[in-house]
Amino acid sequence: MPMHNFSAGPAMLPLGVRERLSEALAPSADGAPSIAEVSHRGPRFMALAEELHQRLRELTGIGEEHAVLLLHGGANCQFAQLPMNLAADRTAAFLISGHWGKKALAEAECVARTQVVGSSEESDFTDLPEMGHLPADCAYLHYTGNETIHGLQYEHPPRVAVPLAADMSSEFLSRPYPYRDIAVTYAGAQKNLGIAGLTVVLVRRDLLERVPDSLPRFLDYRSWAKDLSLYNTPASLAWFTALEMLRWIERQGGLETIAARNREKSGVLYRAIDESDFWRNPVADHCRSVMNVPFWPADESLVMPFVEQAEAAGLQGLKGHRALGGLRASLYNAQTLEAVETLVEFMREFERRFG
Amino acid sequence: MPMHNFSAGPAMLPLGVRERLSEALAPSADGAPSIAEVSHRGPRFMALAEELHQRLRELTGIGEEHAVLLLHGGANCQFAQLPMNLAADRTAAFLISGHWGKKALAEAECVARTQVVGSSEESDFTDLPEMGHLPADCAYLHYTGNETIHGLQYEHPPRVAVPLAADMSSEFLSRPYPYRDIAVTYAGAQKNLGIAGLTVVLVRRDLLERVPDSLPRFLDYRSWAKDLSLYNTPASLAWFTALEMLRWIERQGGLETIAARNREKSGVLYRAIDESDFWRNPVADHCRSVMNVPFWPADESLVMPFVEQAEAAGLQGLKGHRALGGLRASLYNAQTLEAVETLVEFMREFERRFG
Repeated sequence: MPMHNFSAGPAMLPLGVRERLSEALAPSADGAPSIAEVSHRGPRFMALAEELHQRLRELTGIGEEHAVLLLHGGANCQFAQLPMNLAADRTAAFLISGHWGKKALAEAECVARTQVVGSSEESDFTDLPEMGHLPADCAYLHYTGNETIHGLQYEHPPRVAVPLAADMSSEFLSRPYPYRDIAVTYAGAQKNLGIAGLTVVLVRRDLLERVPDSLPRFLDYRSWAKDLSLYNTPASLAWFTALEMLRWIERQGGLETIAARNREKSGVLYRAIDESDFWRNPVADHCRSVMNVPFWPADESLVMPFVEQAEAAGLQGLKGHRALGGLRASLYNAQTLEAVETLVEFMREFERRFG
Repeated sequence: MPMHNFSAGPAMLPLGVRERLSEALAPSADGAPSIAEVSHRGPRFMALAEELHQRLRELTGIGEEHAVLLLHGGANCQFAQLPMNLAADRTAAFLISGHWGKKALAEAECVARTQVVGSSEESDFTDLPEMGHLPADCAYLHYTGNETIHGLQYEHPPRVAVPLAADMSSEFLSRPYPYRDIAVTYAGAQKNLGIAGLTVVLVRRDLLERVPDSLPRFLDYRSWAKDLSLYNTPASLAWFTALEMLRWIERQGGLETIAARNREKSGVLYRAIDESDFWRNPVADHCRSVMNVPFWPADESLVMPFVEQAEAAGLQGLKGHRALGGLRASLYNAQTLEAVETLVEFMREFERRFG
């Protein structure tokens, strides 16, 4: 029975990328080291680092006014590192559209002045927040491009006159996006860019003048803005996999093709949810996530039976996040239309039996 | 021609571990996800996390009075994170025996009061520092168990009445060691514990009471001291590989066997260096590193020819660190005696031609 993996992250890899990763690690007859076993300052790894930076620049469409930083620690680290670097003497403003925006805010509060300028918590994050007044000394406006748990996505970046800081972790490189207009973009790799261990930050170089000199060098963005982000030993397999993912995106036809495929996949699932009274997704139409689709059966006691039976049928990773419950299907770049159609068929069958 | 890899890190993996890693990633016929593609909070990854923590406890011989934290960011992150957690209102004391001790000090200076209580910089780090007076409000005494660049190693931890904090990155699990007596041990995984992306911290739980509540949660040791260090998404392949390394150590016969083998390997190389006037290692006998052996030909202009010809002969990663120049052979756990004997034979041949 073929399996399908709907994990919200670490997410599934395209088959071809997984093959490349496995082959790259297979022992070779002459004992040549794998990419995980060589110095990050040697020519072999440097060539990988160079191509990785270059392809990230091309796919995001940023120019030399942005630096590409390849860091450790995931978005959780950026929740603190970003305000430490760029909001040392100003106020970081926040739009809160779900769980991860709240986490980002809580971490920023430890290291900077913060102000919430909009939150949709009152609607249980079923819609995007209204935008209030920005503080006069606003360092940046932070928003979460896609809320992985609540399944909420900004179609376009908010329009404001201050620098934007975007947590794009769970939608990075899932579609063309105006990264050039975003002052700071950050994203963990383990959704659309391969395996966990790499965090991408795209930051406008002029903002680096704000970084306080008192920061430890490890936490200072400027330590990474040069020398291909090789300030210390990178998680080399995560870098290798990210590069394979970027090559894979190119082979698929680029971000336009990827985006069309992603819209098709999520469209199939949302239609199946909306066509039936048995299934429910409470998010407003205009901001439903293309990447993560949370859904509930009419009777919540059916959540666990669904998870178990789906797993037995080869459909994995459908349990919702512990913060929200319910079910969730993640449809990142590597997810196939076939998997979504199999899921929808299973949902219909489940409804026939329990509806 | 068989190749041998003397990289100082990321270091070579045992063949069997590399095989396991490659197999774990190979696509399976039924489409089952690899360990890199599943939720870190699901049962499959949790079982891995549980065994990894447990085996680390067993091999280091620590008890419940220590917490095991599995973190991101390498030793460079710990240079700042450790004093942020444990020296917020006290003085961190430092013994400086090489490059990495200086780096640790420089980062700590950004976030805490520091005091150097001994440094062997005047001898160009060819010997261990003499120990001076400790500050009255000493948070801990920091030392570098093994200096990877200068090739200097403490045979035993310094004897003091204050808590010890040890950077053990490049000798972690290379021999039995009294980890139980060290208040804080930290080590990046990419030497003896697999691939880059994982940093182990062993910390005495009573010291966690010192952690200031104002720290961002990501940087707060207490966030990781529970729930199997799964505060956020771990670099899952680095965790997987670390577990395979621990199983491999057990199959070898444990740390006693590993230590004897490491002593034999370094003994062969040091004897070859000392027997000849052509080769030189300036470090005092009693503190020569078993892990990293820096050496120089009598004529320094022969360094690059040696590196190039060695590489052509299948001996890789012998170029010294850019901070010190010269040559360096790293002899971590996975290194074989055969590789060291091949290197020594090549050195003799090189001396015959250029000596």
